[in-house]
Amino acid sequence: MNAQEQLALLQAGATEIIPQEALLAKLEACAQGGKPLRVKLGMDPTAPDLHLGHTVVMRKLRDFQRLGHHVVLIIGDFTASIGDPSGRSETRPPLTAEQIQEAAATYQDQCFRVLDPERTEIVYNSDWLAPMGFADVVKLTSKYTVARLLERDDFAQRFAQHRPILVHEFLYAFCQSYDSVHLKADVELGGTDQLFNILMARDVQREHGIEPQVAVIMPILVGLDGRQKMSKSLGNYIGITEPPASMFDKLMSISDEMMPAYFRLLTDLEEGEIQSILAGHPLEAKKRLGGEIVTMYHSADDAQAARQRWEQVFSQRQMPDDIPTLEIAAESFNEADRLWLPRLLVLAGLASGSREARRFVEQGAVRVNGDKITDVDAELALIGETIVQVGRRRFARVVRAE
Amino acid sequence: MNAQEQLALLQAGATEIIPQEALLAKLEACAQGGKPLRVKLGMDPTAPDLHLGHTVVMRKLRDFQRLGHHVVLIIGDFTASIGDPSGRSETRPPLTAEQIQEAAATYQDQCFRVLDPERTEIVYNSDWLAPMGFADVVKLTSKYTVARLLERDDFAQRFAQHRPILVHEFLYAFCQSYDSVHLKADVELGGTDQLFNILMARDVQREHGIEPQVAVIMPILVGLDGRQKMSKSLGNYIGITEPPASMFDKLMSISDEMMPAYFRLLTDLEEGEIQSILAGHPLEAKKRLGGEIVTMYHSADDAQAARQRWEQVFSQRQMPDDIPTLEIAAESFNEADRLWLPRLLVLAGLASGSREARRFVEQGAVRVNGDKITDVDAELALIGETIVQVGRRRFARVVRAE
Repeated sequence: MNAQEQLALLQAGATEIIPQEALLAKLEACAQGGKPLRVKLGMDPTAPDLHLGHTVVMRKLRDFQRLGHHVVLIIGDFTASIGDPSGRSETRPPLTAEQIQEAAATYQDQCFRVLDPERTEIVYNSDWLAPMGFADVVKLTSKYTVARLLERDDFAQRFAQHRPILVHEFLYAFCQSYDSVHLKADVELGGTDQLFNILMARDVQREHGIEPQVAVIMPILVGLDGRQKMSKSLGNYIGITEPPASMFDKLMSISDEMMPAYFRLLTDLEEGEIQSILAGHPLEAKKRLGGEIVTMYHSADDAQAARQRWEQVFSQRQMPDDIPTLEIAAESFNEADRLWLPRLLVLAGLASGSREARRFVEQGAVRVNGDKITDVDAELALIGETIVQVGRRRFARVVRAE
Repeated sequence: MNAQEQLALLQAGATEIIPQEALLAKLEACAQGGKPLRVKLGMDPTAPDLHLGHTVVMRKLRDFQRLGHHVVLIIGDFTASIGDPSGRSETRPPLTAEQIQEAAATYQDQCFRVLDPERTEIVYNSDWLAPMGFADVVKLTSKYTVARLLERDDFAQRFAQHRPILVHEFLYAFCQSYDSVHLKADVELGGTDQLFNILMARDVQREHGIEPQVAVIMPILVGLDGRQKMSKSLGNYIGITEPPASMFDKLMSISDEMMPAYFRLLTDLEEGEIQSILAGHPLEAKKRLGGEIVTMYHSADDAQAARQRWEQVFSQRQMPDDIPTLEIAAESFNEADRLWLPRLLVLAGLASGSREARRFVEQGAVRVNGDKITDVDAELALIGETIVQVGRRRFARVVRAE
């Protein structure tokens, strides 16, 4: 493939490539006998469970690998080992060296379900950040203005709203940039939320006399709820190591509108084929999507079994294809944003009152997305469309109102 | 002296003590057998020549010493050795270790003309700042918000005017604060321009579990020009190692309006005596001021000799006491803010034109503040009142218009 063809392949699915002509120039230099490009991705070891949302970027890394380029995965252990010392963010406790090692090992296993281990280098940024002294930090930060950092979306919003930005958050922004300096990255990948950081690294590389990297920005995958980005903490995710049945069932729960993005960002199918699949029946299309993804992370046999199990649980219980979707008002949810199962049965018209509803549950007559639930205290989050069933024949398809 | 009396003495001449009740509490704890207070002053080794402006703060340090307290002078060699790595400030080139050592030695000699060496400790902040790593810097900066730093006067102005603030300037602000943490300072002294930094150190000490220091803020001494702060770069200063005659002559050049501040901030005279001196003839008062200050930095004999020399040069040449002061318009000055001597003679009515004026200079007939000048290309800055003389009997007293 010549450089122009490589560029076209790399552009597919990407939101932005900045600057595109620089990527073309780098690809050309490489095609004319230069070294393979060094393509960087940073990874936060505080959340080592990869889900399909992460694979959008990783699959683009694999495109680079298929073209012969070199991927560098950075485990961000430097910041992870410090955490948020201001104590304001509960989601960033400092990790011990053991926790980081363990997370990195887990992460590595998962990455290699997408990436080619032969063309992947894994590095820890504490190797070069931890030895830096106060004077080095002063020099690193001395060419960049406060006003410029405050242009970053999240900082700009917080500053405008008089919400605190701690000074060390500025320093953390420099860590990611310095990684690109140290590694002499040619390309950095990230979601749209990483755009500022990736472009900032270009400036910092230039100050250090290094040719600036190219930003390859990928879209953020929407989670199963169809509203927010896929994330473990929101519970709207599919982990890439989840068992085949769970993966398949969750994919069957997404709305029809989400299918095009899921096909394009998560499967290897070509555009023409995707369009012909989407032109058919939505339920068939969804089964195909589930089959493709389970095949990718497990096997074709696993995909076949998951599909059969799903069909047995749902279709063969004669749930009509066309039962309407019932919206459950947000007010019905408790403070933890969950809904008590007996209450759901009443709201869905499957029980006359909570007394009857509790009895159904205790009798083992109630299934949610095919799973029998006998705990009368169960509370549900209702992520995506949910099928609730009482006995063999009574179904409701419910979804949380926006 | 009890704590209340000590406080009264320390308040004299100070602009602000924040918080005053904390200083009283610290003085009381000390009076009840506690340790002497640790009183901190930071010093920039890029400008080691002390002038009378610096002595305002140093004399207050000596007040603390007279009450038995302990002074810690910090040589800011850490930042001096880095300089301004952004390269935007020409006045902050990095200093070598030798330059810093030399500056510190010079500084120390000068300090001990005011301070008691027995109660003075001199330390270098690179001792504790240089060993700090990136992680330490992150922790140090993690409790302080960007918005709060932007409240500092100089930052606030630059931010509002869209002039750059480099990120490392924020880090430098933390250096001064961390000095107070490391030294467990009870009190920090500074001019009004240091108020923010000194108060910031209180917060940083508190975060490190140390009782916050008290800010003792002293007024900024106006320089000989009566307009801007005394500073070496503005040329409107009197160095504390200047020879007696130069010191005396410069003090004689200040305007009458500046005398009260100079008496109160620079001499040991008591308020009653100062008032009675100021009630007398201004010329006598000025001679007394010169005499006091020369005595302090040299000796009573030197003061006497300087006064006699001055009187010989000026008074005994029959310059009338009451010749009016002539203002020279700012437009007469060149781009370098200087005035060509022959032009000054014309403007002052001492020569009919520049041709005659040049001849007077060449003939050796012209003196400026008593010094003969024979260079026809001489240019003057006119700092303070200046006596220009042609021959034995013709005088003019000139001052630059504001």
